[in-house]
Amino acid sequence: MNNNFITFEGSDGAGKTTVLKRVFETLDTITEQPSILTREPGGNRISEMIRNVILDRNNREMDAKTEALLYAAARRQHLVETILPALADGKMVLSDRYLDSSLAYQGGGRQIGCQAVYEMNQFATDGLMPGLTIYFDVPVAVGLQRIAEHRSVADTDRLDVETRAFHQRVHDTYEQLVQKYPDRMVRVDATQPVEQVYESVMTILRNYLNRSDR
Amino acid sequence: MNNNFITFEGSDGAGKTTVLKRVFETLDTITEQPSILTREPGGNRISEMIRNVILDRNNREMDAKTEALLYAAARRQHLVETILPALADGKMVLSDRYLDSSLAYQGGGRQIGCQAVYEMNQFATDGLMPGLTIYFDVPVAVGLQRIAEHRSVADTDRLDVETRAFHQRVHDTYEQLVQKYPDRMVRVDATQPVEQVYESVMTILRNYLNRSDR
Repeated sequence: MNNNFITFEGSDGAGKTTVLKRVFETLDTITEQPSILTREPGGNRISEMIRNVILDRNNREMDAKTEALLYAAARRQHLVETILPALADGKMVLSDRYLDSSLAYQGGGRQIGCQAVYEMNQFATDGLMPGLTIYFDVPVAVGLQRIAEHRSVADTDRLDVETRAFHQRVHDTYEQLVQKYPDRMVRVDATQPVEQVYESVMTILRNYLNRSDR
Repeated sequence: MNNNFITFEGSDGAGKTTVLKRVFETLDTITEQPSILTREPGGNRISEMIRNVILDRNNREMDAKTEALLYAAARRQHLVETILPALADGKMVLSDRYLDSSLAYQGGGRQIGCQAVYEMNQFATDGLMPGLTIYFDVPVAVGLQRIAEHRSVADTDRLDVETRAFHQRVHDTYEQLVQKYPDRMVRVDATQPVEQVYESVMTILRNYLNRSDR
């Protein structure tokens, strides 16, 4: 565990990206520590190439474990190229998604099982876990509605019954993770207006940074 | 373990591909069982895309564990699309390279460690191991010489001192695997003329297929 490493998780449509941008812009109001904001796959050449393989719409025959291994490979490269160097420089690292996303999406959503995905990811991460994970919680229906509003009709058609069941399993798995890791994971109600979600995140961060045991 | 699954391993330049083609063409002289000859990454669309990421010369910053995860992802897809369906059809599957290649190249050559690579690959393979592995053994110097003869001068330049040390570690690891798995792995002296290597492989296969415990 590294106390300077903080991750942000949640289902699609939870509004993480918007809020995180604002949090990062105003982070200097609560800490003087230098920091970076990054997101998987992290913008490095190799991870982006891997992401293109995962997201290629022609790759419909992709096995769920192949997908999990590809996400772990992209995670590894992001860790080595971006996260570890920043931590070594004494910076605070805020990452939009990390290992919990694989537990929720591949372990739960694709039904491979969280334990198997967790153990395989230990190889990718050398066991590095964040000191704090903020979970953006929205009900599945709300998240899907928000995604639909930002997509074309053709894309929206893909949110069929199976996809809804998939997203429900993702959400259920995040719930289990919050129960399992109460010391690391903190829930934020992401159905609130953006301004209030932002304030909630800043409060959690302020409390975390002020903790004497950190 | 699946007794109908047979793999072929060895360092670069061991002559596996040439011999295997001939073995497969004459396999009906020793068995009536239908069979397929395949090789990692197996020619499927997804594994070939992954292979392109691994072999892209611009990806020099690729971490060794990223590489190992990508090979495992390509292996998984090859397994699901080619190996498992053939085994389910009652076919014998001959595969040019499988998990031992990752142990030798990433575990030993890249020095990640065989145990870690083995465990991570259990996720990719669901524990499926071949009943027989034929190891094409050539000394490192001979293998590198053979590769050099088939490459342009520009390519040959890359076989520098570091590469030689890498190939020595790969060879050493294969040696350790043969010692560790005497029931599964059989060594063939691949410094012999191709005709004799072919005969050696056919003899090993004939004995294996005739084994009463198979």
